[in-house]
Amino acid sequence: MDLIKALEWRYATKKMNGQVVPQEKIDYILEAAKLAPSSSGIQPYQIFVISNKEVKEKLRAVAFDQSQITDASHVLVFAAWDGYSLEKISTVFDRTLAERGLPANTMDDYKNSLWGMYEPLGQEWHANHAARQAYISFGIALAAAAEQEVDATPMEGFVPAEVDKLLGLNELGLKSAVILTLGYRDEANDWLVNMKKVRTPKSEFITEIK
Amino acid sequence: MDLIKALEWRYATKKMNGQVVPQEKIDYILEAAKLAPSSSGIQPYQIFVISNKEVKEKLRAVAFDQSQITDASHVLVFAAWDGYSLEKISTVFDRTLAERGLPANTMDDYKNSLWGMYEPLGQEWHANHAARQAYISFGIALAAAAEQEVDATPMEGFVPAEVDKLLGLNELGLKSAVILTLGYRDEANDWLVNMKKVRTPKSEFITEIK
Repeated sequence: MDLIKALEWRYATKKMNGQVVPQEKIDYILEAAKLAPSSSGIQPYQIFVISNKEVKEKLRAVAFDQSQITDASHVLVFAAWDGYSLEKISTVFDRTLAERGLPANTMDDYKNSLWGMYEPLGQEWHANHAARQAYISFGIALAAAAEQEVDATPMEGFVPAEVDKLLGLNELGLKSAVILTLGYRDEANDWLVNMKKVRTPKSEFITEIK
Repeated sequence: MDLIKALEWRYATKKMNGQVVPQEKIDYILEAAKLAPSSSGIQPYQIFVISNKEVKEKLRAVAFDQSQITDASHVLVFAAWDGYSLEKISTVFDRTLAERGLPANTMDDYKNSLWGMYEPLGQEWHANHAARQAYISFGIALAAAAEQEVDATPMEGFVPAEVDKLLGLNELGLKSAVILTLGYRDEANDWLVNMKKVRTPKSEFITEIK
């Protein structure tokens, strides 16, 4: 299925049927998420993949009791760094250089100029910037799920501080950014499944400067 | 080409060869971007598609003189709303209900509760939230470009206020969020093309809660 057809097929599934998504499809979706690009290649986020019943129930309780959380097969919580530091950035750059077989100091000038730009912007800016990178990965994961005919619900309707507490994110220097549930639609019981997909008309969405 | 293969093929193209991307491929990528989901379906962003030579030159001048801007066939500027308002949200909801053939007041409770939540969060939060939605679309556009074997450079390296001025975004209630250049790689002259793609190891990127 090409991407446009997949994106037309997908919708924000409100009611899932509890069927389990095969591990190979979960792995595929996570691999796509991992391949997403990020600013300076830093990938300032992680994904928590929850299939545990009790944890899903606790998550639902801090996500306005939305049933797709517990009816989903797997719930992905995208958690972004709560801030940048020279140490964190160095760890990423050191790994990149080692994997590319380049001298460890190859990116020092770039790294120092990047940190010189980031540091004064402060932790709130950092956290927002890191979350934006997570959203790129989230968009790609969502496309990958659709391509694999796995239903998904993009979700911002949860209490971030409570999700952070539940998953112990504060201790890891992370903040929950956005959630993607994965599973299969319960067509008979989903009010949204047959609703027309509505988007901003192209004439308002696109401005061409030729 | 499946999505994983496409994502492995793509890279942040640093040197493009000036070849023009066929309009049907541009349309495909923009359609994918338009089909991206957004919070409450509001789509609080637009895309400026620049193929005009002079405008690309001016854009390059406020994007740290990066050559892929002028060597690209088309440059997409994702511009997000600088804030939400009850009026803007109502326009979107009214269109959705009209297209679905539902009464105009069907979503009033939802709309009012959404605005009740957004209003006190303030314009900076709004702008950040709108930009995050644009990043979902950006991730999907990037995946669509790779699927179509069109090269692309995801770019945050530009001066947003200058881009806003160049494109007259302030007057439209928009702020430039992120840029995607589209074109074709110049393999012989791109230092990055043969570098190994490095990502956070899966063991650090994914936490499974089974």
